[in-house]
Amino acid sequence: MSKNQDVGISIPILGKMEAQILETGKGYVKAKMPLGPNANHVGTMYAGSLFTLAEFPGGVLFLDFLGEDAGIYPIVAEMSIRYRRPAMTDIYVDMKMDLADLEKMKADALANGKAELMHRQELTDENGEVVAISEARYVCIRA
Amino acid sequence: MSKNQDVGISIPILGKMEAQILETGKGYVKAKMPLGPNANHVGTMYAGSLFTLAEFPGGVLFLDFLGEDAGIYPIVAEMSIRYRRPAMTDIYVDMKMDLADLEKMKADALANGKAELMHRQELTDENGEVVAISEARYVCIRA
Repeated sequence: MSKNQDVGISIPILGKMEAQILETGKGYVKAKMPLGPNANHVGTMYAGSLFTLAEFPGGVLFLDFLGEDAGIYPIVAEMSIRYRRPAMTDIYVDMKMDLADLEKMKADALANGKAELMHRQELTDENGEVVAISEARYVCIRA
Repeated sequence: MSKNQDVGISIPILGKMEAQILETGKGYVKAKMPLGPNANHVGTMYAGSLFTLAEFPGGVLFLDFLGEDAGIYPIVAEMSIRYRRPAMTDIYVDMKMDLADLEKMKADALANGKAELMHRQELTDENGEVVAISEARYVCIRA
């Protein structure tokens, strides 16, 4: 089963959006949101689909880093998105987190029951233009 | 054509989410996001669908207030959402904007070419519990 199928099976509405994971690695997820099923009434990408592109790779990244049995649950506590220009193509995000920051968060959560991590990233179009900037506050809670 | 059909026709992914407008008035929109098509891998509402519930009524409210030929285009420039607790039922938002604030924004946009308006609101579950709080910065631009 491909990672793309995983996304749509885990969260069916992501399947309707045709959200795709293109690459993954430790502390890294590259994802795509296609314009087609996410176009709004003026033909650009709907604001909620752009938010979703910023949001869903976080779960993939944390799960890949922590593994299934880490005893730590990551949640997105807060997220903001600033729209810079209309998104007129498929849109991409390269989500990268520093491995040292992730290790520290994991250690803090195991030691103290809870840890936080802030992450800022850019969403880019096919020409490399930044269409939106998101910032998230993740909270990891020990089971 | 019902307003619910309008939403899904204008922005098809809202139709897939089965997002619904329940009531509208001057400066007022009540909307619903059903859990069913928006459930995540643990059975609560997906974070991106909650964001969408906070986002889409704004367009309806501004269009209803300004009318089609106001010569002013409202856009959401920035939005944040804070998740307070898991959303385990259908979720609702009562979006209310002060009519004096809307009139001022319209006058400012017509006079100066641009105007801004901040709006904070709560998303509530079927028991009236606040599951998330959103805050948006809207910009109205004169055509």
